[in-house]
Amino acid sequence: MASLPFLLDLAGTFVFALSGAMAGVRRRLDVFGVLVLSFVAANTGGITRDVVIGAVPPAAINDWRYLGVSVMAGIITFLFPAAVKQRWNPVLLFDAAGLALFAVSGAHKALMYGLNPIMATLLGMVTGIGGGMARDVLLTDIPTVLRADLYAVAALLGAATVVAAHVLHLPSGPATLVGAALCFGVRVLAMKRGWRLPVAGADATDGTQH
Amino acid sequence: MASLPFLLDLAGTFVFALSGAMAGVRRRLDVFGVLVLSFVAANTGGITRDVVIGAVPPAAINDWRYLGVSVMAGIITFLFPAAVKQRWNPVLLFDAAGLALFAVSGAHKALMYGLNPIMATLLGMVTGIGGGMARDVLLTDIPTVLRADLYAVAALLGAATVVAAHVLHLPSGPATLVGAALCFGVRVLAMKRGWRLPVAGADATDGTQH
Amino acid sequence: MASLPFLLDLAGTFVFALSGAMAGVRRRLDVFGVLVLSFVAANTGGITRDVVIGAVPPAAINDWRYLGVSVMAGIITFLFPAAVKQRWNPVLLFDAAGLALFAVSGAHKALMYGLNPIMATLLGMVTGIGGGMARDVLLTDIPTVLRADLYAVAALLGAATVVAAHVLHLPSGPATLVGAALCFGVRVLAMKRGWRLPVAGADATDGTQH
Repeated sequence: MASLPFLLDLAGTFVFALSGAMAGVRRRLDVFGVLVLSFVAANTGGITRDVVIGAVPPAAINDWRYLGVSVMAGIITFLFPAAVKQRWNPVLLFDAAGLALFAVSGAHKALMYGLNPIMATLLGMVTGIGGGMARDVLLTDIPTVLRADLYAVAALLGAATVVAAHVLHLPSGPATLVGAALCFGVRVLAMKRGWRLPVAGADATDGTQH
Repeated sequence: MASLPFLLDLAGTFVFALSGAMAGVRRRLDVFGVLVLSFVAANTGGITRDVVIGAVPPAAINDWRYLGVSVMAGIITFLFPAAVKQRWNPVLLFDAAGLALFAVSGAHKALMYGLNPIMATLLGMVTGIGGGMARDVLLTDIPTVLRADLYAVAALLGAATVVAAHVLHLPSGPATLVGAALCFGVRVLAMKRGWRLPVAGADATDGTQH
Repeated sequence: MASLPFLLDLAGTFVFALSGAMAGVRRRLDVFGVLVLSFVAANTGGITRDVVIGAVPPAAINDWRYLGVSVMAGIITFLFPAAVKQRWNPVLLFDAAGLALFAVSGAHKALMYGLNPIMATLLGMVTGIGGGMARDVLLTDIPTVLRADLYAVAALLGAATVVAAHVLHLPSGPATLVGAALCFGVRVLAMKRGWRLPVAGADATDGTQH
């Protein structure tokens, strides 16, 4: 029977695949390029996590449902881009949902493999941000995560909630929902209200250039 | 004694290394940069496959012949770029040959490690397209695979041929040759005749921009 | 008790994290983006080495001190960019020091895991150049290693010194220091004096363009 983390993982796969497919459609990639980008955006974070914790073959390679969900999201986006696209930049909204789902499921899995709390939190964040980074790198954009409003911070908060509940022996189901909601909420509010983390002083960027 | 898949792997390594070296020479990299790009283009796909199926250290790291073949191709290209270069864009032709060889040998190896048919096909494709993607990402180009005429589809057909023969208990030698020829043929014909997969409707790309 | 290779690894982590953070500050990333880039620049080479030699979870994931050192370097750089920055391009100088430290410690670890001398040398180089390549790819620059004066060659010399001492049964402590000094010296001299490796003849780059 499918567990909650597994279902969250598939849901996150679907929304990240939508985000990858939308980015591909916008850059005028052909249908197969769109599908490749769907799979990469949806599964790179989880594959990276699984490889570094020693869970090989990674779930996304061993279980055809990750591929199936990714391809389905890619085809839907390719056929009905106008329906997927909203007035408000949908890539970023899908991104926020995928980020939340992957951060909590990634932290879960790292805990299950015996990683310590600090590193389980970090790997939850990596699961969340890895796919989007790979998507942006393939399209030769500087990854959103390095620039955007509280992107990685939101993932970190979601993962930390799950890990904290584990350390404190609290039930994991509610903690998962709270963590995902916290991550999604922080990210969406940050986008809507333009919350930003500080950048270093302007004097840091003048002087020597290469 | 060297098996057919092993020899195909080395041949694919050689032609992908040529493709990486040519791309490096064109971008005016120095001789060592050209060699690094040769190795990356030739071995990233196989290393990725081996890491995710748990075959560590990967063949390309554990067996010096992959390094030797990559460096030899890089040096030949560096010394005689005019000879390697043809009138017709050679990077793309070498790419097609390497794609075919890697797709079939990658599918072979994934089957040997017990992956299911769908995922063995996918990993054959990854073996074929991984090196070229890494080469293009390092040179900050959007990977050819995401844009080009039937690139990943050709790899998928080649890998699927090998996997289908395995499932149907047909002899693997002929299937390997047929799969490689199919992949190479589809890719070269697609380039020559300008076959393309469809892109999404133009209305998908207007509207919100970021 | 901490061994010499471990301390070199942490020192290399610190200087590469400074290099990643400086690159992030210059591109006006926010504080979290700067920290992500610190971690990526500092740990991608080592994580890649550990994953391919089968040492999972990689040290940088399993031992919180790598994260701690990376974050500390990132925060220092973010708060005091003018102090970290020197008149002469500091990213490149930090890079040279990190390159030297990682090349020797990477070769050490690969030998410990039983890799043959050629591949241990190569993995020492990968440990040295991986982080800088990932940093540059994330910022959509062509990696320094592919263009710069004797960059990968310096890493190769440092790693080869350690491996040669191992093969010849010479004491590893002095070999480590000599290898690191050799790598750093070659790289810094190459930068100061403009030493360059040759590029292929100009005729190689005309003709067919895509």
